[in-house]
Amino acid sequence: MHTREQLLKAAAEVFDEFGYAGAGINKILQRAGVTAGALYFHFKDKQNLAQEVMNAQRSTIEPHVPTTGLQRLVDITLIWSHSLQADPLLRAGVRLTAEQAASGLQDATPYTVWARSFQDCLDVARAQGELREHVRTEELAEFVVGACTGMQEYAQVVSRRADLPRRTVSMWRLLLPGIATGPALDGIENSEERALSLWTSLSAPAEGEGTRP
Amino acid sequence: MHTREQLLKAAAEVFDEFGYAGAGINKILQRAGVTAGALYFHFKDKQNLAQEVMNAQRSTIEPHVPTTGLQRLVDITLIWSHSLQADPLLRAGVRLTAEQAASGLQDATPYTVWARSFQDCLDVARAQGELREHVRTEELAEFVVGACTGMQEYAQVVSRRADLPRRTVSMWRLLLPGIATGPALDGIENSEERALSLWTSLSAPAEGEGTRP
Repeated sequence: MHTREQLLKAAAEVFDEFGYAGAGINKILQRAGVTAGALYFHFKDKQNLAQEVMNAQRSTIEPHVPTTGLQRLVDITLIWSHSLQADPLLRAGVRLTAEQAASGLQDATPYTVWARSFQDCLDVARAQGELREHVRTEELAEFVVGACTGMQEYAQVVSRRADLPRRTVSMWRLLLPGIATGPALDGIENSEERALSLWTSLSAPAEGEGTRP
Repeated sequence: MHTREQLLKAAAEVFDEFGYAGAGINKILQRAGVTAGALYFHFKDKQNLAQEVMNAQRSTIEPHVPTTGLQRLVDITLIWSHSLQADPLLRAGVRLTAEQAASGLQDATPYTVWARSFQDCLDVARAQGELREHVRTEELAEFVVGACTGMQEYAQVVSRRADLPRRTVSMWRLLLPGIATGPALDGIENSEERALSLWTSLSAPAEGEGTRP
């Protein structure tokens, strides 16, 4: 693993465990096993490191999803519903995002980056004739980002996120009949079984990557 | 205003401003203008006070909504989208709820109390024939609570919640076609104008109540 990735991973673990305020630079250096010089070569300061952790969330999922259009958007959220339980990078991103809201900071990037990516799926869905006329892709993308944000907080409190896959499947069962055209609706796969199998097939190669020099 | 209400209001303002950790009992006493004895007569400790603030959220809106069924659920969220900007009790409840998630506490009450109340609206909606067959009221109620939670965090970061009414109207525009039967769908009013006018008519009598002995 490269030094930059090592630092991001270590920082994610420390942010996930102690929050932004409690995550000292020394804790992160110790966890990563690198020098302060190496850290400041790659990141300006702790705030910059936190922003990069928030923004690295997407890259852990999206490159690995093989579907397109509406099914792709469903699949990204299904995988996310499992990854969030297992991946410190995703969990840290979520904790940092929630804490910045509570502390009055205003970096919208973690939301807008996801929304932009969801809108890309929806633009393809529109071109493929999968969306009903009244659906505005930007509005739907932003809504799904917000809904996922709140859904995982609810799931965290009631089940430490164990029931997040079920809640994500529910979301689509409620949303799809209102947004998808008839033929698209029939073709979309949305189930807890799919969530688990997509996530399992994604997490296997990811482990392989981790052992690369 | 009664001492208990005075304490809840003062505590809400202090929690809203400083968060749970930063809200000292003395700050709350000073703001409320009451003695420590009075506080401990009404509340066991700071944690109990925080829980009561979280649970008082609903009472600021629901008794004042005149509609029933699906329209009632829409109206509660439309009013909430404005109240959250103006009412420290609602804002404190939201901040305390978000911070407990971040700090690993697990009181689900703020979520389940709203979900229970939303489900009551939806059970009436079902009895009135407003809901499509496939909709499970408990699932939909929990989804709307989670979606509202995340939506207001998103709105907080991008606009200090100024665009929350617009986002709430969007949510229903996306959800209703999939959950409401045809006749119900035609009858539901859902607009930013309605949000503003409901909230305005609700906040006028609330001020009057505040001046009662």
